[in-house]
Amino acid sequence: MPITLDATTADFEAQFTALLSAKREDSPDVDDTVAAIIKDVRARGDAAVIELTARFDRLELTPETLRFSPEEVAALVAQVPQAEREALELAAARIRDYHERQLPEDASWTEESGAVLGWRWTPVGAAGLYVPGGLASYPSSVLMNAIPAKVAGVERLAIVVPTPDGKANPLVLLAAQIAGVDEIYRIGGAQAVAALAYGTESIAPVDKITGPGNAFVAAAKRRVFGKVGIDMIAGPSEILVIADKGQNPDWIALDMLSQAEHDESAQAILITNDAGLARDVEAAIERHLQTLERRAIAGASWRDYGAIITVPDLDTAAALSNRIAPEHLELCVSDPGALSQQITHAGAIFLGAWTPEAIGDYVGGPNHVLPTARSARFSSGLSVMDFLKRTTLAKMTPVALRAIGPAAETLARSESLEAHGLSVRARLDHLNG
Amino acid sequence: MPITLDATTADFEAQFTALLSAKREDSPDVDDTVAAIIKDVRARGDAAVIELTARFDRLELTPETLRFSPEEVAALVAQVPQAEREALELAAARIRDYHERQLPEDASWTEESGAVLGWRWTPVGAAGLYVPGGLASYPSSVLMNAIPAKVAGVERLAIVVPTPDGKANPLVLLAAQIAGVDEIYRIGGAQAVAALAYGTESIAPVDKITGPGNAFVAAAKRRVFGKVGIDMIAGPSEILVIADKGQNPDWIALDMLSQAEHDESAQAILITNDAGLARDVEAAIERHLQTLERRAIAGASWRDYGAIITVPDLDTAAALSNRIAPEHLELCVSDPGALSQQITHAGAIFLGAWTPEAIGDYVGGPNHVLPTARSARFSSGLSVMDFLKRTTLAKMTPVALRAIGPAAETLARSESLEAHGLSVRARLDHLNG
Repeated sequence: MPITLDATTADFEAQFTALLSAKREDSPDVDDTVAAIIKDVRARGDAAVIELTARFDRLELTPETLRFSPEEVAALVAQVPQAEREALELAAARIRDYHERQLPEDASWTEESGAVLGWRWTPVGAAGLYVPGGLASYPSSVLMNAIPAKVAGVERLAIVVPTPDGKANPLVLLAAQIAGVDEIYRIGGAQAVAALAYGTESIAPVDKITGPGNAFVAAAKRRVFGKVGIDMIAGPSEILVIADKGQNPDWIALDMLSQAEHDESAQAILITNDAGLARDVEAAIERHLQTLERRAIAGASWRDYGAIITVPDLDTAAALSNRIAPEHLELCVSDPGALSQQITHAGAIFLGAWTPEAIGDYVGGPNHVLPTARSARFSSGLSVMDFLKRTTLAKMTPVALRAIGPAAETLARSESLEAHGLSVRARLDHLNG
Repeated sequence: MPITLDATTADFEAQFTALLSAKREDSPDVDDTVAAIIKDVRARGDAAVIELTARFDRLELTPETLRFSPEEVAALVAQVPQAEREALELAAARIRDYHERQLPEDASWTEESGAVLGWRWTPVGAAGLYVPGGLASYPSSVLMNAIPAKVAGVERLAIVVPTPDGKANPLVLLAAQIAGVDEIYRIGGAQAVAALAYGTESIAPVDKITGPGNAFVAAAKRRVFGKVGIDMIAGPSEILVIADKGQNPDWIALDMLSQAEHDESAQAILITNDAGLARDVEAAIERHLQTLERRAIAGASWRDYGAIITVPDLDTAAALSNRIAPEHLELCVSDPGALSQQITHAGAIFLGAWTPEAIGDYVGGPNHVLPTARSARFSSGLSVMDFLKRTTLAKMTPVALRAIGPAAETLARSESLEAHGLSVRARLDHLNG
């Protein structure tokens, strides 16, 4: 049974705080194993990657077959039914359109002194995208990671995707093709992350690695961070639905189950000011859990981490939501625009009953890689910005240096950094005489 | 003696690759100590912080004196000479002006279907800034970290600064006051990072921690990452100067020494197409190293990590610079604007001979917290963006859902996520009758 809380009871604050701080993921400590794998790949390159792939994926590769050939990609992609191809293409077009609007502008301005200041954005040179194999191999994630990189202007985009026993997912390859991925390697695990970060004889190193993965992949990303950039380490998925009277309980139940079915550690929470709706949603969830294909997973998630919170009003709902800082927030209320103004921390907001969260997973346009585990308090979903970096620009003139140089000298002296001050003073002396 | 390389020699590529991969920092492994400190602060709060401060900083505090009182701040700040106050105020005004221009815009647009898409930026709720104590206690760093946070709209900004033996730096407190910092705590080390991340009885937790620190602070920031956001883990400072014939060798020497004097692990590199200038800069550096106050530090840096590279032309210089991806890049050339167009990876560019890097450290306007150790390949300097996060927005309509819902259903089915598909199907069925 999920937790049921009432915001008007005396012990609510303690219960809500417990809900907030509940740890939903207990990652196995694989750090030593991962450290050894990375060391091995750095030392032996291709040979290590090939050996580890044989051991973990039961797949014999050579330096020549680490990468899918264009012919192999074409043959696999040809297996994809037309309806799925069209759906992927529609999704890709919408994701591309949304992300193209994120491209930031360069800036440059001239001060009265003639000094010019500004900044310029440039893309990361090469990016690598981890795509999980097996059950959680999602073509939609390929689009969500690869399209922002290509929109940012990343010249070289490589994918690593393990193919246990040699089984590849044609939809993943098609998504990569549609997104404009340049290289696809049939490797996975910590060895694939190490190969991307440090390079091997056959795989050139990249500058940034993104994409989801299991505990080994997450540990490897943490370890190579600094050598390359990484995206966030994502935790289990979450949804918070805020609903008011008159909403369709069945739709809300399905939206909540669409998070719960991802993972036994996923979390679905309903906050409502209508006790009747709370009961109806709970009943609808129980009903769907009788028949849902992934009922074992969704049922465990709902039982262990699900929650229904009744509140006196929607202001309270918004305040609680901001403390949760949910990854996905659905506002199934009569005036979602007004309520959204009260939301300060959320990865993505879905406004109104016609916007099921699943739309955002596939075809809405915004990215589905979003901050989990309350990290929407301080971080954002994946975007074009993750594949760009900013270079600041400054050009002084003699007039500008005369105006602000002495202050720099004063501060340099106060920080006991003599050469800093002298580098300014030498120029000022030149100007003065 | 620094390394001297000539890009036209046969073994240059090997030598340059060795220069690129040279490890300049050998951080002591303090992770176990830091893990124990964090655990202690989480368990015992104020009491642990107070004990650790007594042990490491030889300072006896109580829960009431952890934080500087307004009266203490006022008394210390009153000690700052007028010239230094004015210099800090000038610096703060220029940094604020530059960073205000970084504020990104929200976006919202309506599609033909009536669907509304967009995003919204909101500030991090509370931020904590680590300020080192002792010699490397730089008021300029307080401005560079605190002003972007306040420009972003962070409501609560706390500083932690250790005061070994009770000695506080009045300039640091004044910089905090000018920048609008809300709370100042006289604690440091891993215990201060833990207190900011997890909170104690007297210190409310923050959402994001930025600022430089020693190996203990860096290890603590890595450990609390995920619970809170952190900025980059900065390495030793670097400067690359590209210069052509006719530039002033003395100015370039001082610019290079102003990085070298920071740290024995700092690195200063000159790339020039003029062998005569190369000799003159080297001679000028040796000359200044006779008298510079911090000649022991700067001399060690120059001896161990300094480099002079001669190249046949400036195109080669730009290409090598892009492989180095320097933190600071000075273009002391006759046409710095043209050369800067060839630069794809750099933290900050200083254009022309009138722009010594030290201007950027204090009063230029751009941030001086910049990516080190080649990480400008994939990351940017500190900015307003580090204290903001983006929430994506999507609002569908019946028309929009009819148009794109079926594609979402198709993709959900292909990923075996039934509830995802059902959440869309339930709405489409409702529309269809």
